[in-house]
Amino acid sequence: MTFQEIIKLHPQPTSLDRDALLDCIDACLDCATSCTACADASQSETDVQELVRVIRLCLDCADACDATSRIVTRQSAPDLRLLAAMLEACSAACLASAEECERHAAHHEHCRVCAEVCRRCKKTCDDLLAIVVVENQH
Amino acid sequence: MTFQEIIKLHPQPTSLDRDALLDCIDACLDCATSCTACADASQSETDVQELVRVIRLCLDCADACDATSRIVTRQSAPDLRLLAAMLEACSAACLASAEECERHAAHHEHCRVCAEVCRRCKKTCDDLLAIVVVENQH
Amino acid sequence: MTFQEIIKLHPQPTSLDRDALLDCIDACLDCATSCTACADASQSETDVQELVRVIRLCLDCADACDATSRIVTRQSAPDLRLLAAMLEACSAACLASAEECERHAAHHEHCRVCAEVCRRCKKTCDDLLAIVVVENQH
Amino acid sequence: MTFQEIIKLHPQPTSLDRDALLDCIDACLDCATSCTACADASQSETDVQELVRVIRLCLDCADACDATSRIVTRQSAPDLRLLAAMLEACSAACLASAEECERHAAHHEHCRVCAEVCRRCKKTCDDLLAIVVVENQH
Repeated sequence: MTFQEIIKLHPQPTSLDRDALLDCIDACLDCATSCTACADASQSETDVQELVRVIRLCLDCADACDATSRIVTRQSAPDLRLLAAMLEACSAACLASAEECERHAAHHEHCRVCAEVCRRCKKTCDDLLAIVVVENQH
Repeated sequence: MTFQEIIKLHPQPTSLDRDALLDCIDACLDCATSCTACADASQSETDVQELVRVIRLCLDCADACDATSRIVTRQSAPDLRLLAAMLEACSAACLASAEECERHAAHHEHCRVCAEVCRRCKKTCDDLLAIVVVENQH
Repeated sequence: MTFQEIIKLHPQPTSLDRDALLDCIDACLDCATSCTACADASQSETDVQELVRVIRLCLDCADACDATSRIVTRQSAPDLRLLAAMLEACSAACLASAEECERHAAHHEHCRVCAEVCRRCKKTCDDLLAIVVVENQH
Repeated sequence: MTFQEIIKLHPQPTSLDRDALLDCIDACLDCATSCTACADASQSETDVQELVRVIRLCLDCADACDATSRIVTRQSAPDLRLLAAMLEACSAACLASAEECERHAAHHEHCRVCAEVCRRCKKTCDDLLAIVVVENQH
């Protein structure tokens, strides 16, 4: 992915830790697409009626990750309260879909892998959130 | 708008107050588009360099409202912690862009109107959040 | 909805017919949310396995309408070829979900209503497309 | 990125060439984020008034790539006319932002890199489009 290079070329770069920022964006992109793919795979399974909650929470998680990846990508004149609240929402979305996908991991491999991606994305959101909270106190 | 009719036809409708839900979706759609339009108007103004923060926060707010409108629209098997966190993030996004647009309301009419839309959207998110929090305690 | 007012306040307004523009944005917002709601209602139906194509095409249509509503909302320095291509894609997405929802209209009222919204959105896209094509020839 | 693995686990995988599909999704994610970052960097430049068209077209391109990445990711019961139209729209969006970014490549490194990402994304859309068109004739 080349977007990292463009983020580094911003004329007024963020004071937040750049690696934590890039990790979070990367994880959000992977998680948004993984959740879109898992919801789509789930709705084509023969036991789709057992997967209603997987589908619903993966769709929610994809939407939360999309919005978060865009907001975290912007470095111009941020609002740290908004950034923190968005990272919390994305973390909650990742947790919800991870927990539900884990319930189906034994019989659907795409749920098992998707849960892992959601857990990883939750961690990068939580890590960046911790940095934003400290920065906001200064 | 006809989407309200479809929401009422869900086979397993939400237990949340339907009017609060519909008000929130409607306000999010209006706010997402208003913020997209205000960011676009601002970047074509001759004093665009004074409006960097308006543009950035309006773009963020449009993204948060988009994700929130989709998540609130879904009624199947919701996760109330995620719903609450998303409404908080959207409320924070609306507040940030409302406050910044208000700083420019005297000389840019589109900022004045956009601030009003953001305030209204924040209120519908806060109202629905209060309902979700009570529901989550049951 | 208040966004129309902000669009009218753009410092360098579009030369395209404003009413056609506003109708298209309004229809895209309604269609995006209607399709999100219809996909969500469909996946909670007991005959969900008959509705796989409804769900998939409604999700696609919501995504196409979202992108189109944002692109049509922006008036600064447009690219008319891109605008035309996006309206064509949105029209194709509306047609696909309308046709599939119509197949299920007799037994699912949300599909019947959603098909109407998709048809209306397709029409506003086609109307605006005709205007863009003429404008692009000048 | 792990989403490729989930796409491979779909119970009813697409008949389209899988590598062309994955390349297109990957390029769309990179392009959406690169364009979000380039628009954001551009609006913080001191010569922002020269960059109005870069900002506008990068925002459009990000929206088109987002929608395309989601639609291409779904494999259940596709509509090939819609898929083709969306790939054409995304290709047009990538071309428009590539051409405008190239005009500013000499004095803004983020525009130079963004133009390259847009060109690459356009190519993956065109390649997948050619495959979809052939498939649609069968």
